[in-house]
Amino acid sequence: MQTNPEPTVPYGQAFALWRDKAIEPWRAYTRHAFIQGLGDGTLPEVAFIHYLKQDYIFLVHFARAWALAVAKADTLDEMKTCAATVNALVNDEMQLHVQTCLAAGISEDQLFGAVEETENIAYTRFVLEAGYSGDFLDLMATLAPCVLGYGEIGRQLATKHSSHTYNDWIACYSGAEYQQTCADVGHLIDCALTSRLGTDYTSGPRWATLSHKFETATRLEIGFWDMGLRGR
Amino acid sequence: MQTNPEPTVPYGQAFALWRDKAIEPWRAYTRHAFIQGLGDGTLPEVAFIHYLKQDYIFLVHFARAWALAVAKADTLDEMKTCAATVNALVNDEMQLHVQTCLAAGISEDQLFGAVEETENIAYTRFVLEAGYSGDFLDLMATLAPCVLGYGEIGRQLATKHSSHTYNDWIACYSGAEYQQTCADVGHLIDCALTSRLGTDYTSGPRWATLSHKFETATRLEIGFWDMGLRGR
Amino acid sequence: MQTNPEPTVPYGQAFALWRDKAIEPWRAYTRHAFIQGLGDGTLPEVAFIHYLKQDYIFLVHFARAWALAVAKADTLDEMKTCAATVNALVNDEMQLHVQTCLAAGISEDQLFGAVEETENIAYTRFVLEAGYSGDFLDLMATLAPCVLGYGEIGRQLATKHSSHTYNDWIACYSGAEYQQTCADVGHLIDCALTSRLGTDYTSGPRWATLSHKFETATRLEIGFWDMGLRGR
Amino acid sequence: MQTNPEPTVPYGQAFALWRDKAIEPWRAYTRHAFIQGLGDGTLPEVAFIHYLKQDYIFLVHFARAWALAVAKADTLDEMKTCAATVNALVNDEMQLHVQTCLAAGISEDQLFGAVEETENIAYTRFVLEAGYSGDFLDLMATLAPCVLGYGEIGRQLATKHSSHTYNDWIACYSGAEYQQTCADVGHLIDCALTSRLGTDYTSGPRWATLSHKFETATRLEIGFWDMGLRGR
Repeated sequence: MQTNPEPTVPYGQAFALWRDKAIEPWRAYTRHAFIQGLGDGTLPEVAFIHYLKQDYIFLVHFARAWALAVAKADTLDEMKTCAATVNALVNDEMQLHVQTCLAAGISEDQLFGAVEETENIAYTRFVLEAGYSGDFLDLMATLAPCVLGYGEIGRQLATKHSSHTYNDWIACYSGAEYQQTCADVGHLIDCALTSRLGTDYTSGPRWATLSHKFETATRLEIGFWDMGLRGR
Repeated sequence: MQTNPEPTVPYGQAFALWRDKAIEPWRAYTRHAFIQGLGDGTLPEVAFIHYLKQDYIFLVHFARAWALAVAKADTLDEMKTCAATVNALVNDEMQLHVQTCLAAGISEDQLFGAVEETENIAYTRFVLEAGYSGDFLDLMATLAPCVLGYGEIGRQLATKHSSHTYNDWIACYSGAEYQQTCADVGHLIDCALTSRLGTDYTSGPRWATLSHKFETATRLEIGFWDMGLRGR
Repeated sequence: MQTNPEPTVPYGQAFALWRDKAIEPWRAYTRHAFIQGLGDGTLPEVAFIHYLKQDYIFLVHFARAWALAVAKADTLDEMKTCAATVNALVNDEMQLHVQTCLAAGISEDQLFGAVEETENIAYTRFVLEAGYSGDFLDLMATLAPCVLGYGEIGRQLATKHSSHTYNDWIACYSGAEYQQTCADVGHLIDCALTSRLGTDYTSGPRWATLSHKFETATRLEIGFWDMGLRGR
Repeated sequence: MQTNPEPTVPYGQAFALWRDKAIEPWRAYTRHAFIQGLGDGTLPEVAFIHYLKQDYIFLVHFARAWALAVAKADTLDEMKTCAATVNALVNDEMQLHVQTCLAAGISEDQLFGAVEETENIAYTRFVLEAGYSGDFLDLMATLAPCVLGYGEIGRQLATKHSSHTYNDWIACYSGAEYQQTCADVGHLIDCALTSRLGTDYTSGPRWATLSHKFETATRLEIGFWDMGLRGR
């Protein structure tokens, strides 16, 4: 019996397929206690702040991974989409993050001085290494759980949150701008798969490898929330 | 006897030192017959068009190399400068290039269909591979001759060209915007050297390796002009 | 009061300095409960087997990192030492590992089918990514805690173990062959630092960055033992 | 009318297909004047020596590319084959090269001091960069023309050379050991394609990209012979 079917999210075909193949860890990630706590306001502030500090470090490596995608792209269109993402991350999103942290009482110095947690290292280096050792598709498969998972979580919280404590966070990831990024990234992934592996991209052995990387990245996202809850 | 001393260019300290250590190839690069032809209008149009087509392919790889620099950067400031360069290249400069080519009678299809010349492959892959196998500094040392050499060539042609045939090209590289990019890149390089190797960055063995890479890239730039002159 | 001074290990100068700068995590790594359990035989077999399975996956990535070092080397001598290490790992050590696991009741299929733990991903990908994004020295600084730490642990257990249960493991890492590898790697690191940064390689800013990477890798080794103890 | 059909070479299926798709440059490469000169002894010694010096530098980068293939491999078997190739290159082949050069009057110092020619840079960096930016298959497609082309040239010269001047060179590449390496590499490539893209690996879009890389590498091999003939 499945009382909460997965929401339909408009982030393209490959994402929907990857998500279905990794449905157990995907649920553990997108319905994590950390997220419940964001929605009903029960997440302790200390956990949220711990998460924010680690997420700042995460975003640095995330931007580096998208930059690597520019270097690994096959077409000018792929380069443009990835370059725009890098630019948005380093010039807008990270600046916003610094402000959110300041509002939460964390100075920029504290942000920079935070020691990177193992779960953070695991996820970010897994993505970057998959990209360096593999190709553009490996990078997309490992980046997808973060970009698109946050989009799905944002949409889910926007419709059912019962507290206003973490409104800003929810507004950011459910907002039109972030949702458009998700749609663009989903489209980028579908096109990249088709142009490299053909329209029946799920029929060859590469699909299993990519799906496995998507699933591992999803498991590492669960670890990231767990780490957030450990915040002291 | 040296009748034409090198112009003083405000692109930072490391560039001035690298240029002096590679002064013979540097002169062969920045005073090449191709450039004389741009200045006095004697460059055959067919050579210019051949160059433009190859330069378009060059810019794709050049943007990829700057994106790799984002992935290899140590600080957020380095990331921002390099990301801005990528963005300018893929969203502005390459678009401008397409238009210049259209004006010169080369369709976008012809641009995309051009076969990459050996000299083009040699330079672009040398830069990218130096970056992948080495670190951020190796990337800077191999990117510098192109970015800053074009700045120097632009300034030189702006003051002494005797023909208006290639005015647009000269205006582009002598213009305030491109010159500012050169100043920024020169500053980025000086800071990157200091923050990694200390203020006396020329005293260790790394300096010789980086200077050698700068010189090799300069030699490859000469080859690029030679290739342009072969245009048919 | 320090009752157990660090043993003097003949693995070169840089290693001794890195170890001293990271002495707290280094002790937590080299005197971990897992190692005490190897020495006095109290380590549960299930924990040892869990460790062995993860270590097999670790060795695959470890060999890949040493191969990356060949690609990133500056001299033929560096290439030869690193290539010999890769060869020893993929042709000898991993085969030995398969046999040890078979003796412990783990089939080769089970070895290949093991799900990689987060701590394993964190350490291996941290090393590989440091290598890809940085240069040869970054790779050496992150590989050192594993290679040389196991050498130190082996020597320490060889002189004071009170049980024969884990004799084979202890004999492997305290043996002449492995100790020679450690001496060779220590020498490789000292030479690589000197040839790139000069004889006073600790005086520039690069030294702090490399030391920090050594320390992070050491912390990730602690996590690896913790993960071993979780074995079920 | 085709009087000289391509010889059938037992280096696997993918190689045969790639070669057929790039048949014009392939012939220009494998029937180059340099090779005719090796066969009939008319190749000037100065050209041969120039080639040998450049080929030494080439082999360094070639070994680095095979090491990168170890880092980018998917399976232990792939890793073993590539690691064995690296080992053979840095411990045997390059040593043999040093001796051949010594016999030809080139000291080891001269070998190390040779300035890398543009054609050499173009080919080696093209291979390495294709590997870094792409995946294992991109590396194989760009390495294949060199490994397998030399095998084909060796076989061809062994059956029809009319002079003994360059016997050693011909014996090396037509010999059982080198021919076995070619068979192994051909098999490695077929397996790598099948395990990643399926048994009908020519049906998807990736095949065209890989074939194009094989062809570009073949063109760069022609440039390498041209460069050899320029020897002074």
